[in-house]
Amino acid sequence: MSTGVVKVGLLGVGTVGGGVLKTIRSQQQKLSERLGRRVEVVKALVRDTDKQRAVQIDRDLVTTSFEDVLDAEVDIVVEVMGGVDPAYDYVRALMEKGCHIVTANKELLAKRGAELVELANRHHVQLAYEASVAGGIPILGVLRQFLRTNEITSVSGILNGTTNYILTQMEQHQLPYEVALKQAQELGYAEADPTSDVEGWDALYKSYILAQLVYGESLPLHAAERKGIDSLHLGQLALAQELGYRIKLLARASRTEGAIQLSVSPTLLPLDHPLAQVQDAYNAVQVSGNIVGDLLFMGKGAGELPTASAVVEDLAFLLTQRFTPHPIWQERQADKVRPQEQKWSFCYLESEGSQGSPDQILHFLDRAGVEVVKQRIQYDWANVLRIGLVASGFTDEHGELLHRDFGIRADVFPVLAP
Amino acid sequence: MSTGVVKVGLLGVGTVGGGVLKTIRSQQQKLSERLGRRVEVVKALVRDTDKQRAVQIDRDLVTTSFEDVLDAEVDIVVEVMGGVDPAYDYVRALMEKGCHIVTANKELLAKRGAELVELANRHHVQLAYEASVAGGIPILGVLRQFLRTNEITSVSGILNGTTNYILTQMEQHQLPYEVALKQAQELGYAEADPTSDVEGWDALYKSYILAQLVYGESLPLHAAERKGIDSLHLGQLALAQELGYRIKLLARASRTEGAIQLSVSPTLLPLDHPLAQVQDAYNAVQVSGNIVGDLLFMGKGAGELPTASAVVEDLAFLLTQRFTPHPIWQERQADKVRPQEQKWSFCYLESEGSQGSPDQILHFLDRAGVEVVKQRIQYDWANVLRIGLVASGFTDEHGELLHRDFGIRADVFPVLAP
Repeated sequence: MSTGVVKVGLLGVGTVGGGVLKTIRSQQQKLSERLGRRVEVVKALVRDTDKQRAVQIDRDLVTTSFEDVLDAEVDIVVEVMGGVDPAYDYVRALMEKGCHIVTANKELLAKRGAELVELANRHHVQLAYEASVAGGIPILGVLRQFLRTNEITSVSGILNGTTNYILTQMEQHQLPYEVALKQAQELGYAEADPTSDVEGWDALYKSYILAQLVYGESLPLHAAERKGIDSLHLGQLALAQELGYRIKLLARASRTEGAIQLSVSPTLLPLDHPLAQVQDAYNAVQVSGNIVGDLLFMGKGAGELPTASAVVEDLAFLLTQRFTPHPIWQERQADKVRPQEQKWSFCYLESEGSQGSPDQILHFLDRAGVEVVKQRIQYDWANVLRIGLVASGFTDEHGELLHRDFGIRADVFPVLAP
Repeated sequence: MSTGVVKVGLLGVGTVGGGVLKTIRSQQQKLSERLGRRVEVVKALVRDTDKQRAVQIDRDLVTTSFEDVLDAEVDIVVEVMGGVDPAYDYVRALMEKGCHIVTANKELLAKRGAELVELANRHHVQLAYEASVAGGIPILGVLRQFLRTNEITSVSGILNGTTNYILTQMEQHQLPYEVALKQAQELGYAEADPTSDVEGWDALYKSYILAQLVYGESLPLHAAERKGIDSLHLGQLALAQELGYRIKLLARASRTEGAIQLSVSPTLLPLDHPLAQVQDAYNAVQVSGNIVGDLLFMGKGAGELPTASAVVEDLAFLLTQRFTPHPIWQERQADKVRPQEQKWSFCYLESEGSQGSPDQILHFLDRAGVEVVKQRIQYDWANVLRIGLVASGFTDEHGELLHRDFGIRADVFPVLAP
């Protein structure tokens, strides 16, 4: 590594990339004091050199050609362009040249992480990715360094700020999903194509990374349970709240009796649960250890500066560490996958016609062996019946029978604690 | 350091010491895998060898003589006896012999930390003290490793589980302070002599340590603002709640324009503030960084296993690190001390006679330049007048005038946000 100055290449000068540039400038003194040398961005890859940016950047540093970054003498490259293609090829080529990589790219890690870890080890470079999970919260560092003696039974949390913002707006202002989404897009919290966020992919990528870090293995992405917020509606949120819960998009990685579980789903949390207090674009991670108990970490999960903070802190930390091989990542065979066990469910039943009274429906469920512990019954202005249940033993088959016999549509969500 | 096995000495086999023994046993496999050798407690100093303990311990390991620990071949000593005397002398003698120290002793660090740091550096041993602040929450590690590029403007939080338990009981069950304290003592949350907890000393020691870690300096303990919960009563909690706040014992270390501030005080937090949600014996720390924004860390702050978790994680981490000198600790001259700036106060006014109406009192304050933004007026069953105000500009002098002219006693507490 060159002396005197740490030469940094930057792939992507969007929101996070701009924040990284600003942070390296504003925190230069602290960086230099800690590292004994200045940190300088010497080359930055962009799509369009003429684009107006919120951050000032020397025209000489900017390029649209990846080859210019590869040819520049850089010690370390920050990848904040997102996506797998071409990010994977770029990162691979840089590692092969001996560059350390700091990335915020959860999709890249969840889809090609195992290969990248192997490449990093083969070329004796470091791969750092604190910024890929939970923005400014240093959760990966904590798990890697300070919770290694505990058995970690689960790591769960609110890992996607966009969907948490949308859910908060829906609940607080009774906005339908589409309106809340549009508002989030106008405010820059959601992208023009919100698929990855609202369908739960983004949160799943992050859970995948957490599982690899904590357990040294994860599930293939397709084997995880994944349900987004795109079909949630206000009626469900309102009935859940009447029953004493708030619906959050909960991501969860856990290990029980050797089996890894990975899931993302709208989940009912008791209103006094710490994760239920996490509102707007905040993220929070709850770690359960067998000795320490439950720990909660909360902070801004997205946005220019919180994520840039994680990138730059990660970069500085990396430069204080000697190279040690990164623990390998593996994927668990799908045949060993067990679904997340979930004793309690929230069943949202909505009548499509008027073929049964609440009493008849509850009587049917009782005889079918479904144990109901809480219930709320509503009729809306159009006299549509809605029933919210917290129950155990409700299966898909019950849902099908309710539809056949009563014209009832059933949506089922996990409940964290009844 | 001897190979094959890490030999650990233990000073104190009380609640935390017992937890450390249990944790080293139950997590032996994880420890051995990480460190490449077993971890064994080879000598344990106790006050009474015949005492019944919740944890099983070999009689040969137990001694009442510190010399036995000093003479034993130990690599590392865990000090969980508490207090300064004789802990300081013991730790000093062990460091001089080349032992690393892991301690949970906040009082020792706050009163003699600067000397201990200097001794550790002189003898090339490590001094680790994660367990001294916020139990199982790895807050010191996070600040030291992962938040070094940020300017930390403040570190505040609920650092004392005993007082938080008492306040939670008082608020939730309308228990007077003395009753809640007695209950905490019966449940083992409070000690027979609760002075250090309820007068705010314990929380102050922890803030002192946080300030040293984050700013490299702190204030002499006597120069900090310190107010405990021992004179709080239900009337104050109730009026605060009516105004939309919860009273918590908030400890705070901050730096503004180069000046360090250190304070512990019952403080009004808005009910929707994350720290207001921290109940019972939980601890939480809020870190404000100029890039990352606010981060919150929450977990069990006391008790056998959470603190033992911090001790054993700290011990394992220490053994993976090469020696580097500990940053020195210093105390800021008292003449540079500035009081915590507090724009908003909660003024709890209680009439000792009946010399003034609420209108007269509020009129007086208005003319005296006190800006009142929220107010609640109550008369209790004995017709005693109580006024709760959130105000700015209220000084001791106003309090004196209220007493002279209206027979009013004024208690004033900081408010985090109006």
